[in-house]
Amino acid sequence: MTSSHTAPEPSTDNLAAERLARSYLVRVAEPPAPAVVDFVAQLGPVAAAEAIRAGDCPSRVRDETEARRTHDHAQRDLDEGARLGMRLLIPEDDEWPAWPLLSLQLAASRGVPGAAPPLALWVRGHTRFDEATEQAVAIVGARSATGYGEHVAGDFASALARQGVPIFSGAAYGVDGAAHRGALAAGGTTVALLGCALDAGYPAGHVVLLDKIAELGGLVASEYPPGTPPARHRFLVRNRLIAALSEGTIVVEAGRRSGARNTATTAGALGKVVMAVPGPITSAMSIGCHELIRESGATLVASIDDVIETVGRLGTPRPEKVRSKRPTDGLGPDALRVHEALHKREGKSAEQIAAESGVPVARVRAVLPALELDDLAERCESGWRGRARR
Amino acid sequence: MTSSHTAPEPSTDNLAAERLARSYLVRVAEPPAPAVVDFVAQLGPVAAAEAIRAGDCPSRVRDETEARRTHDHAQRDLDEGARLGMRLLIPEDDEWPAWPLLSLQLAASRGVPGAAPPLALWVRGHTRFDEATEQAVAIVGARSATGYGEHVAGDFASALARQGVPIFSGAAYGVDGAAHRGALAAGGTTVALLGCALDAGYPAGHVVLLDKIAELGGLVASEYPPGTPPARHRFLVRNRLIAALSEGTIVVEAGRRSGARNTATTAGALGKVVMAVPGPITSAMSIGCHELIRESGATLVASIDDVIETVGRLGTPRPEKVRSKRPTDGLGPDALRVHEALHKREGKSAEQIAAESGVPVARVRAVLPALELDDLAERCESGWRGRARR
Repeated sequence: MTSSHTAPEPSTDNLAAERLARSYLVRVAEPPAPAVVDFVAQLGPVAAAEAIRAGDCPSRVRDETEARRTHDHAQRDLDEGARLGMRLLIPEDDEWPAWPLLSLQLAASRGVPGAAPPLALWVRGHTRFDEATEQAVAIVGARSATGYGEHVAGDFASALARQGVPIFSGAAYGVDGAAHRGALAAGGTTVALLGCALDAGYPAGHVVLLDKIAELGGLVASEYPPGTPPARHRFLVRNRLIAALSEGTIVVEAGRRSGARNTATTAGALGKVVMAVPGPITSAMSIGCHELIRESGATLVASIDDVIETVGRLGTPRPEKVRSKRPTDGLGPDALRVHEALHKREGKSAEQIAAESGVPVARVRAVLPALELDDLAERCESGWRGRARR
Repeated sequence: MTSSHTAPEPSTDNLAAERLARSYLVRVAEPPAPAVVDFVAQLGPVAAAEAIRAGDCPSRVRDETEARRTHDHAQRDLDEGARLGMRLLIPEDDEWPAWPLLSLQLAASRGVPGAAPPLALWVRGHTRFDEATEQAVAIVGARSATGYGEHVAGDFASALARQGVPIFSGAAYGVDGAAHRGALAAGGTTVALLGCALDAGYPAGHVVLLDKIAELGGLVASEYPPGTPPARHRFLVRNRLIAALSEGTIVVEAGRRSGARNTATTAGALGKVVMAVPGPITSAMSIGCHELIRESGATLVASIDDVIETVGRLGTPRPEKVRSKRPTDGLGPDALRVHEALHKREGKSAEQIAAESGVPVARVRAVLPALELDDLAERCESGWRGRARR
């Protein structure tokens, strides 16, 4: 599948330099690194990496990079990754999941803490990442799931995967593992997002499962460069990617203090659909789900039909989607708001867009041609509209 | 416990005549009988019974009574009831649950079909009916409940009964029976409302349970005179009384087409709290509960704490309640709306009441003194307020 956008392809040399720069950046900046992400958006990855390496950067950026800025293993990491069967996917790549990650950037611009998008993703598996996020659903839950929870997770994952829905999860024991296995069993796509490096061998009991995911058309991905061990805070940081990359998150089982609830909360903050599966009130593993439904407005889902009805357009003709080569790189907060205000089909005047986005009309007029260059907007008879891909 | 209202007590002779009249009326009019209820509100029970007996009544009333108006077993029913340990409770009695039944009358005046209050209630048991409805909760559910459903019903009923909450249910097998038994085991009050006569021996397997309820401080009640057999439509008609007489209804288990859902729907239409207990999505007996939560806005309750939080003031100091000797008899739709607009403590002007109730101010001024006579309103420095009982 090739992209149909009209912007010029960056040269292979450029891409290689950008990949090397981002290899340095993901090693140096522990995610989420909002200041580094902003800095890269301003300067581009190559110049930003150079400035950080030299310590010649704003203090916010320095705070996020000072501890490791001399860890300059960029090429070594790329070589080691290649040896281990990983590739470093960067926002400059065609298959970067720019569209779903826009939710993180928008949340970050709204001040949601920790919502910065990733600087790059280490990936195993041969599927295109952008395709694996199309109408994806996350299925997450307790590590200490009951037989009921594992059954439901596997069942939902299989049924959704059979309908072409990619299943995202966190590769943990319990619900996560059952979800990945269910999707694999149905011959579907599943994506495991890890809170450690792809070569950390974690969780130990799921090493074979992760190999299978990478081999059988799925993806295993992580922000963390080779050798990074798992850590509690990394699971929480990872959760934002599960939430952002899927259209909705289903919590199958969760105790009172489950990490799955964190994913659900993040999904809600990103404007994604949050669903929870009920269970026996006598089960400690359903307490979190019931609280999500009762107190946090999660939608109860008791069947695949419920999930499809809730997530919306699954099983119906897919809507046209705007995709860009690098939307997250080019767009500042104003451009994001202008872009959000565009309709896919119907044109709008600059005045109308200004009114809807709250961005001053002069600024809207300046931003629109930039969005057009980025393949994110186009002129039409009635004004401007979002760029729709066939 | 004596009433503190200031209206004159009806004489014992009057009460006897009214009871005899209503014994005739509940025999003649299959509930719900909205036209007969209105007719009795206008003429009083004695004159209304006489007119119906003579066939000298409006056509709507005749429609509801024509089939049985010659079944004049009023005294025989009272005698037979007494022999069987039943009494006929009538709205003219001090212990009539006038306040909770107001919800039915208000719903009827809003045009909710089938919401007419009962003309009288046949009762077994020695507790005062009005006290048994104070902050009551209904626990209902599938006859073919699972072990899980019976466990939850019994558990909730016991825990609530221990906190002084009367438990209402329908005496059916499964959830209903477990709820009654749980309340009895906790030494609490439980009320069984039947869709047949108290002497129908139905359900056969619960005859002993019903005897125990009547003996151990609970109540067994029905609109149906001695000898009335159970019928499907009578269960549905009975459900409105369970819904009206309790502050909230908990559905513990319900299949896709459960009668418990009918009670829940009615409770919602009466403005009562509707709660549902989740269960395994693999259980057909929890489908109805999940649908109620997902589609009908029922509140998920997974613990007694959830129930108490949802129903509100359980376990907190009880609010003062307005009670009247015969509020349902005296009040037309306007008076009901005016009464609804009164505050228990703070006085309001007639203009304010008119604005809030939508009843013209001249009519408000006419209705207020009538409400005062009925002990439902009182004058105060700042206008009019609802009559509060110490």
